[in-house]
Amino acid sequence: SKQYNIAVLAGDGIGPEVMAEAVKVLQVVADKFQFGINLTPALIGGAAIDATGEPLPPQTLSVCQQSDAILFGSVGGPKWTGLAPDKQPERGSLLPLRKTFDLFCNLRPGQIYPAFADLSPLHPRVSSLGMDVLCVRELTGGIYFGEKGRSDSDAFDTQRYSVAEIERIAKVAFEAAQKRSNKVTSIDKANVLQTSILWRETVERIANGYPDVTLEHMYIDNAAMQLIRSPQQFDVLLCDNLFGDILSDEIAAIAGSLGLLPSASLNASGFGLYEPAGGSAPDIAGKGIANPVAQILSAALMLRYSFGEEAAASAIEQAVRHCLEQHIVTRDIDPKSTYGTAAVGAAIVATL
Amino acid sequence: SKQYNIAVLAGDGIGPEVMAEAVKVLQVVADKFQFGINLTPALIGGAAIDATGEPLPPQTLSVCQQSDAILFGSVGGPKWTGLAPDKQPERGSLLPLRKTFDLFCNLRPGQIYPAFADLSPLHPRVSSLGMDVLCVRELTGGIYFGEKGRSDSDAFDTQRYSVAEIERIAKVAFEAAQKRSNKVTSIDKANVLQTSILWRETVERIANGYPDVTLEHMYIDNAAMQLIRSPQQFDVLLCDNLFGDILSDEIAAIAGSLGLLPSASLNASGFGLYEPAGGSAPDIAGKGIANPVAQILSAALMLRYSFGEEAAASAIEQAVRHCLEQHIVTRDIDPKSTYGTAAVGAAIVATL
Ligand SMILES: CC(C)[C@H](C(=O)O)[C@@H](O)C(=O)O
Ligand SMILES: CC(C)[C@H](C(=O)O)[C@@H](O)C(=O)O
Repeated sequence: SKQYNIAVLAGDGIGPEVMAEAVKVLQVVADKFQFGINLTPALIGGAAIDATGEPLPPQTLSVCQQSDAILFGSVGGPKWTGLAPDKQPERGSLLPLRKTFDLFCNLRPGQIYPAFADLSPLHPRVSSLGMDVLCVRELTGGIYFGEKGRSDSDAFDTQRYSVAEIERIAKVAFEAAQKRSNKVTSIDKANVLQTSILWRETVERIANGYPDVTLEHMYIDNAAMQLIRSPQQFDVLLCDNLFGDILSDEIAAIAGSLGLLPSASLNASGFGLYEPAGGSAPDIAGKGIANPVAQILSAALMLRYSFGEEAAASAIEQAVRHCLEQHIVTRDIDPKSTYGTAAVGAAIVATL
Repeated sequence: SKQYNIAVLAGDGIGPEVMAEAVKVLQVVADKFQFGINLTPALIGGAAIDATGEPLPPQTLSVCQQSDAILFGSVGGPKWTGLAPDKQPERGSLLPLRKTFDLFCNLRPGQIYPAFADLSPLHPRVSSLGMDVLCVRELTGGIYFGEKGRSDSDAFDTQRYSVAEIERIAKVAFEAAQKRSNKVTSIDKANVLQTSILWRETVERIANGYPDVTLEHMYIDNAAMQLIRSPQQFDVLLCDNLFGDILSDEIAAIAGSLGLLPSASLNASGFGLYEPAGGSAPDIAGKGIANPVAQILSAALMLRYSFGEEAAASAIEQAVRHCLEQHIVTRDIDPKSTYGTAAVGAAIVATL
């Protein structure tokens, strides 16, 4: 039977607690769908800084290199905010992992679940229309990785995109749209940026290969506005690295349920890093009340995208949906709920 | 008595209709507060393209150069979207005007008016807490104006900021905060961008001169999220050109009343361009139903910032507030209202 090697990087804050539940879920579906999983934990983020001085120690990198996918918890916390930017837990672990494994494609689904529309900070007249978007974000290019520098009197950053970089992320967006509602909204600032003009031209050319998918272009400023006014108009959002960073968090805010949102960061050969959209939430860490759903759904995405175990992925997603419908949720979803992290994890396991 | 020369660039779409009301209001306050105004209309945007082939003809530029301020309507429409980016009405008029007059400082207030909280697309549990923010956006630097270029296979844009550029916009933000609620939230992406690190350091240094103002830093992605989750936490937002473009439109969406929001773009000597935050709204142009309030409030900002006519500016703002309270509003504010553009303008004039 198939055997998958998974690097388990639980990290800081609520990371370890929610990871424990995701691991239980993985073990159950591995049994049920008859594949083997081989979990190797490794230090990352603040925990790694405390132990080794570095947010991404060589030992961790080598565990990742020997794995078929990375299941990532969350990193960061008040203890490490004083460090220089590139030594900080988040930036110092995520950016080098993305670059090392060429994880050019970030997928961030964002939904308003009808049963939980009231979680959304949007007005019921808007949230009742629903939202079901997939933000496809370019993750290894643009202003994040371009030439940068500074002197005493000024500083600069360069945003650079090649046609090839735009093509490969655009294809992902169109293919995703074909499995969803056949619409791609490409985000740019083509009235100001040369990279955006190239982006728009390239996306239009790629769109010709997907005649069943409707393409529209939208300026980033307008998109930031439209997401709030009528999020139901969107299906797939195609964004460069910086615009995707901003809009995917805006989408998460609109969904109103950070604790439910997973994300996937993939390379061309199916290797990926899977993590909850939310952060390490140091304020509630260790209390057993963190929502494990985003971590569990991240594991489901791993099964789907890196291992092709669609049945197991869907089973997890269905079990999660079932528990949500039964109101077996942590208190970020329903303040009156008495379920903690482990109880929600156990309910999902039991459903499976 | 004092005499002010004003370039009146009404532009496209609803621009001319709403400008007509702002001009009436200006004439009334000029009489009442005993100063003279000298209005010189000139072509801009699509109207200028149609007449001269250029969105900002030399003749218009020279009118602006001979004026003490520019009152700008709005530009753009479907007729001109096929043009090359730098020939388009919006970009082709606004960017060169900003650069020519060194309008480095853009002020965009955004409010949820308690009486109209329901206009906001936010949930009443959020919008009832109110929002009253001022977005201070750097407008002549950053990635908008840095070196850019492209080849067949790639393109680049450069974001560059000097300490001097950051200092001057930061001072505006701190001074504005002193007249408001004494809080500045400076927006950056200091975990990724060198320009943001310089931005953060410089803003911190300037903050030392304003010990009564609280400074906090926030990453752009988090700010895009926090504005939706709890906009009442913000007072003054200090942003670079690109982040300010995005957040000021996000704020406008949250306010839910584009037709009420003015903006000011200023240089160091008090010269400024004043325009509604909304666009040319071609779909409702010529119907006499556009909201003139944003244009009228833009005129008030002109009186305050470029002419120092605080009493006249406040009088306009009070008259506008009075009419809003009396529900003398266009249908973007209240769909059941029967007041049109001219009726709302006349009511504001009558109140004055
Ligand atoms: C930590 C930071 C560098 C990172 C990013 O900006 O990409 C984070 O915000 C994210 O979106 O994963
Ligand atoms: C038209 C465009 C270039 C402009 C900008 O991005 O600055 C507009 O969006 C604005 O905010 O005034």
